[in-house]
Amino acid sequence: MVSGWFYLSCLLLGSLGSMCILFTIYWMQYWRGGFAWNGSIYMFNWHPVLMVAGMVVFYGGASLVYRLPQSWVGPKLPWKLLHAALHLMAFILTVVGLVAVFTFHNHGKIANLYSLHSWLGITAVFLFACQWCLGFAVFLLPWASMWLRSLLKPIHVFFGAAILSLSIASVISGINEKLFFSLKNTTRPYNSLPSEAVFANSTGMLVVAFGLLVLYILLASSWKRPEPGILTDRQPLLHDGE
Amino acid sequence: MVSGWFYLSCLLLGSLGSMCILFTIYWMQYWRGGFAWNGSIYMFNWHPVLMVAGMVVFYGGASLVYRLPQSWVGPKLPWKLLHAALHLMAFILTVVGLVAVFTFHNHGKIANLYSLHSWLGITAVFLFACQWCLGFAVFLLPWASMWLRSLLKPIHVFFGAAILSLSIASVISGINEKLFFSLKNTTRPYNSLPSEAVFANSTGMLVVAFGLLVLYILLASSWKRPEPGILTDRQPLLHDGE
Repeated sequence: MVSGWFYLSCLLLGSLGSMCILFTIYWMQYWRGGFAWNGSIYMFNWHPVLMVAGMVVFYGGASLVYRLPQSWVGPKLPWKLLHAALHLMAFILTVVGLVAVFTFHNHGKIANLYSLHSWLGITAVFLFACQWCLGFAVFLLPWASMWLRSLLKPIHVFFGAAILSLSIASVISGINEKLFFSLKNTTRPYNSLPSEAVFANSTGMLVVAFGLLVLYILLASSWKRPEPGILTDRQPLLHDGE
Repeated sequence: MVSGWFYLSCLLLGSLGSMCILFTIYWMQYWRGGFAWNGSIYMFNWHPVLMVAGMVVFYGGASLVYRLPQSWVGPKLPWKLLHAALHLMAFILTVVGLVAVFTFHNHGKIANLYSLHSWLGITAVFLFACQWCLGFAVFLLPWASMWLRSLLKPIHVFFGAAILSLSIASVISGINEKLFFSLKNTTRPYNSLPSEAVFANSTGMLVVAFGLLVLYILLASSWKRPEPGILTDRQPLLHDGE
């Protein structure tokens, strides 16, 4: 029953995450002229797609590896490797998304990193990089003591959730900003809510719904890997703790 | 030692919260012409101040009532009343902040609720209203059983944190949007980072720092009221649980 609800949540999460990415691609393809890699505005169009995919959807999915009931039994190392590898994929998508916007700006002589959206976004990416490196050094490399790992684990989990919250705030402010840029000087500006605005606003609300579902599964649910030594009816066997 | 760190965190939280409100007031007073209540742009200026004060600072402070060590002993009812009353104050500030922006829009024939900022903000306020009413009905009125309260408590705590996250995303997108509005058609537009932009961006980053500290104290710290029946060295006496 418990794992039934869990897999139902995963199905909802997968659907929401796919919709977030597909809606962003559709917005950029249908209303903003599609994609290119040449320093033009069509290169910018990769930015929203890759940031939503990297900093929200892949990041969110990667955060939930230890909520899979399969990860509760047996050695933890393969799950740690999966957690780190998925986050690395999320980080690579994010960096390519940043390259897209910086190249577009530099090509068009547009200033970088002036808006609050960019300040918050670059802070989220910086914290993500620190979190990944510290997580790799402490939880994957074999030198750290159990004491250090136990001390840092709640901080690692908290910052994981905090970075996702910052990413969502960055994505919301980014979509909002993009719509003000794109829909000025048109016959149907943003404040007349043309179909593009309704679609992109809805995409933003989907990103929020996805993020909240990730945070719920991560922080509030009972689907946590039991700590070593704590045997429950959901965990008949437990080898090799931290 | 534990409560020493707690009070240090409270001091930091109080300082950050005061700075968030004071910085927003200073931004509106010094760069945006100050305040009025007459449907003009000066009436709009109440909106950012009241939303930061209501949906972030008062809301955040009110969320943390049960983290005060004084709340851990003795009857819980006075703390519940304080929690509800502070949140009601936060909600009243929020509603006045909404009245300010709606009146300004209606007076100037500007459309309401078209931007993603407004969609997310109004969702956060709606969820806040639901959360307050449900919390009042279930946790303050005497009819609900312990079973129902135990069932709803983690959901109440999760939505409390989720609404704060949505508020922060709304505030960030709101500051970003306001700066694009105010700093266009000027000799020093937003992308040249005039002093107003640096100041308002910094205010946004302070709001994020405040929000993250609230979420840390709320979710990740060990400063939680022990559940009834669990006696710890920090809680010598325990009367009247939930």
